Amino acid sequence: MCVQCFAAMSAKSSLEKWEYKRDGLGAHDVEVEISHCGICHSDIHLIDDDWGMSGYPLVPGHEIIGKVRKVGPGVTNLEIGQRVGVGWQRGSCGKCEFCISGQENLCSEHKATCVDGYGGFAESVAVSERFVFPIPEALDSENAAPLLCAGITVYSPLRVFDVKPFMRVGVIGVGGLGHVALQFANKFGCEVTAFSSTSDKKAEAMKFGAHHFVASNDGTAISSAAGSLDFIMSTVPADLDWSMYVNTLRAGGKLCFLGVPPSPLTIHPIHLLMGQKSICASPIGGRTLMLEMLSISARHKIVAQTELLPMSEVNTAIEKVRRNKARYRMVLKA
Amino acid sequence: MCVQCFAAMSAKSSLEKWEYKRDGLGAHDVEVEISHCGICHSDIHLIDDDWGMSGYPLVPGHEIIGKVRKVGPGVTNLEIGQRVGVGWQRGSCGKCEFCISGQENLCSEHKATCVDGYGGFAESVAVSERFVFPIPEALDSENAAPLLCAGITVYSPLRVFDVKPFMRVGVIGVGGLGHVALQFANKFGCEVTAFSSTSDKKAEAMKFGAHHFVASNDGTAISSAAGSLDFIMSTVPADLDWSMYVNTLRAGGKLCFLGVPPSPLTIHPIHLLMGQKSICASPIGGRTLMLEMLSISARHKIVAQTELLPMSEVNTAIEKVRRNKARYRMVLKA
Repeated sequence: MCVQCFAAMSAKSSLEKWEYKRDGLGAHDVEVEISHCGICHSDIHLIDDDWGMSGYPLVPGHEIIGKVRKVGPGVTNLEIGQRVGVGWQRGSCGKCEFCISGQENLCSEHKATCVDGYGGFAESVAVSERFVFPIPEALDSENAAPLLCAGITVYSPLRVFDVKPFMRVGVIGVGGLGHVALQFANKFGCEVTAFSSTSDKKAEAMKFGAHHFVASNDGTAISSAAGSLDFIMSTVPADLDWSMYVNTLRAGGKLCFLGVPPSPLTIHPIHLLMGQKSICASPIGGRTLMLEMLSISARHKIVAQTELLPMSEVNTAIEKVRRNKARYRMVLKA
Repeated sequence: MCVQCFAAMSAKSSLEKWEYKRDGLGAHDVEVEISHCGICHSDIHLIDDDWGMSGYPLVPGHEIIGKVRKVGPGVTNLEIGQRVGVGWQRGSCGKCEFCISGQENLCSEHKATCVDGYGGFAESVAVSERFVFPIPEALDSENAAPLLCAGITVYSPLRVFDVKPFMRVGVIGVGGLGHVALQFANKFGCEVTAFSSTSDKKAEAMKFGAHHFVASNDGTAISSAAGSLDFIMSTVPADLDWSMYVNTLRAGGKLCFLGVPPSPLTIHPIHLLMGQKSICASPIGGRTLMLEMLSISARHKIVAQTELLPMSEVNTAIEKVRRNKARYRMVLKA
């Protein structure tokens, strides 16, 4: 069949209507008829080939929700018509220690939805059943679509780095990732501090679950938070004064990068040593945490705050993401 | 009473015979008659005021073993004549969350044996009973003295960062800390790789418990270890190619600094992100882990390999440590 979609034909270009031919489904593949697809900053990085891994034509989109339309003969755990989601990952080896422990995101043969195939700015997508996740009924498709990437990206580190209810969590950046991170951290029982350079986001940050708001360009305010946080998630792709944030950690605290700053980080190990601090980073999450995250989101009504546009207006939507004007996540509707 | 000791009268000077007056013991203080004291690289840093925290006259020495000679009226858990040890730490607030959970090394009111008082290159030392640890009978005083600082420094991160028997552990540097780290990592059940720039240490590294030996100045050998280690402890106070070592980590792996390199570390978070890696550091350990470490050391006969000199030859011994000629720890005998 021919799949209608939107593709970048070269690096940094606007998307164009395009179509590609899909061969028959593999035994364990699932074809999803797409109803919604969120736009992630990673899509922009892929369009622009910022990571040197893009191939063109490139069909972005990896925050996909839709309905199962067709399944390969080996698929037994999903039914035609079932509402499902697909995220950043479309495949993995299935055999290594990471795959068999549900940490497929760490598999060295990890396949990405829009890099090792065509993504979700399209009428449909086909991926392995292992990376097609049932969406709980309590979640609305528009607001849940961003959970498939933004949601798992902020949920996974809270679990992997063992964040506990008595802890104090900082979230740097109140954007597509940050506004979901605030919700999860709050529901984990933590005391939550939002850092943002946009002071008019304060009221919304508090609504999402922050207990404190610190202007991330106010050195004095950040200094006065010294030694107060157990875990910081940085969701911004910017160069900040990381030493200052390390200084806001309590003993045993961790600074975790989810967004990637343009420049390397320079830090003296002595500033980690006295307080037994860590600097770490985390990419999406495996299947175990994806299912957990969707279940917890349904329980606590954790969703993204979205702006909806028809998929035909994909370039307008992308422009809004490029200019950081989305509050907080753009979602395309088929 | 007057305490006979060896002191540096100014930064970088040789030690001289000196004496200081000790006031009566506090209610919870213990006076230890010193039989042995190890020499740690930190003693050299303190003598040289490398950390800007030294006061003179400075009496170094914080790997102390001796016998309880006198106790304050409030001391109930130690007896006169009992063999005990004192390490880097002599005090803490006793009330904060770190102190009450046995992580006194992270207390913000942490007091260091040779900084907030006079250390162990002396006839005796007096510190709070909370930082005086009974030495198990199975351990010999000379070889056990270095456990009080080198031992706890390498044991603590194995526990705090949750190293498990199925893991692969790297130890950078086969020196005072490294040769003890190899023993603990081996007894933890791990597969152990020693990295050293001194290739003639290979046989001894294997004897201490390494299963593999990699020349730390052989870029090709280090590259071929890519993706192989879960936890690396760096014990060397040198600037190495840290990105290369991050590259030897498996997904989820951690690079932990115990020795402090002179220069800051420059690393791009993207190199941590894909494999969910961490960079961390660790200072000594609290009372809980000190007792654990001494008990485990006794069970498995883990001790330092030492060279003994009489305390009167302290300057000769220090010179050997300065030139990295000790194999593997200099110990002074009273």
